[in-house]
Amino acid sequence: MKVIVDFTVVPVGTGLSLSPYVAEVERVLQRSGLHHVLHANGTNVEGEWDAVMAAIRTCHEALHAMGVVRIHTDIKLGTRSDREQSMADKVDSVNRRMATS
Amino acid sequence: MKVIVDFTVVPVGTGLSLSPYVAEVERVLQRSGLHHVLHANGTNVEGEWDAVMAAIRTCHEALHAMGVVRIHTDIKLGTRSDREQSMADKVDSVNRRMATS
Amino acid sequence: MKVIVDFTVVPVGTGLSLSPYVAEVERVLQRSGLHHVLHANGTNVEGEWDAVMAAIRTCHEALHAMGVVRIHTDIKLGTRSDREQSMADKVDSVNRRMATS
Amino acid sequence: MKVIVDFTVVPVGTGLSLSPYVAEVERVLQRSGLHHVLHANGTNVEGEWDAVMAAIRTCHEALHAMGVVRIHTDIKLGTRSDREQSMADKVDSVNRRMATS
Repeated sequence: MKVIVDFTVVPVGTGLSLSPYVAEVERVLQRSGLHHVLHANGTNVEGEWDAVMAAIRTCHEALHAMGVVRIHTDIKLGTRSDREQSMADKVDSVNRRMATS
Repeated sequence: MKVIVDFTVVPVGTGLSLSPYVAEVERVLQRSGLHHVLHANGTNVEGEWDAVMAAIRTCHEALHAMGVVRIHTDIKLGTRSDREQSMADKVDSVNRRMATS
Repeated sequence: MKVIVDFTVVPVGTGLSLSPYVAEVERVLQRSGLHHVLHANGTNVEGEWDAVMAAIRTCHEALHAMGVVRIHTDIKLGTRSDREQSMADKVDSVNRRMATS
Repeated sequence: MKVIVDFTVVPVGTGLSLSPYVAEVERVLQRSGLHHVLHANGTNVEGEWDAVMAAIRTCHEALHAMGVVRIHTDIKLGTRSDREQSMADKVDSVNRRMATS
């Protein structure tokens, strides 16, 4: 089952700068080989359900290994049974609507 | 790694009543044996990361099997490396603060 | 427009215990007069859109006033145009499904 | 109080294609004058708290006016009291970390 995910990892009880932790999340995703796109409030990822969830788990393990004691994460995800859809398809679909309206 | 999760499953492209689908989510969780509590905007679950994530995946599979073509799910989750904390601990901790302030 | 909301306030850059901040959120909601229910991963609130959103804004202001420099908040919300539905209705509706299945 | 927001509007009880509704959300944001960026799982927006929340409310009103009876929306937001930070700053900050590691 394919899944398209947006997730945001929020370390708790660290300093104010979260970018070292978001950078580590990016490194975990690069090593995972999953297609992912960073945006201002999280990271979009697509792939097989188990691979994507394993990558998010690895992010938690990597941040705990960096000394982050408590982590809050938000995940938004979508699956569909009718057809495969990529993250690029979703944005294209809206842009086509905007162009023709 | 233990995780405390809140998740909300939103079927897309069905009728307006979502309760048959939320009831199915509840049934999946009951069969999982995981401790879970339904609330007005989702379900709280706690357990080992892989068991909880497998249960959420099973919810998607069960709803697709009921004919739901597209599913949007939100997950909020927390892990901590210092100590185990249960869902009941979290609520108790706030209630103690309220009582003593 | 009525709204049913679940929200979670996550202070960033503080200590590990978040209960003092969640307790402050509870106090803000009590003063707001809005119907609200604390659960293990957030707080459910219902009311008029502007009143609920004003209360969440007041939570941010109150936590910044306590010295929290950075705050991450998740909100899940629902509106419907066909009829009024309360938080209790939503849970009852699922429980009725469970009882009759 | 400035806020950086990611939000996703999920119409319930409509057809499977959500792009007409996401396009309407984009139109509302364009008319709002707020800086916003569409991504595969939502839209990022930044601005004054009240202006951003008013825009999200207008999205709900616009979709209900299109005939959507029930709407589920997820919002992730951040405020900070120490300094102004833009959406571009957040991405730049992570990219700098990646480049120097």
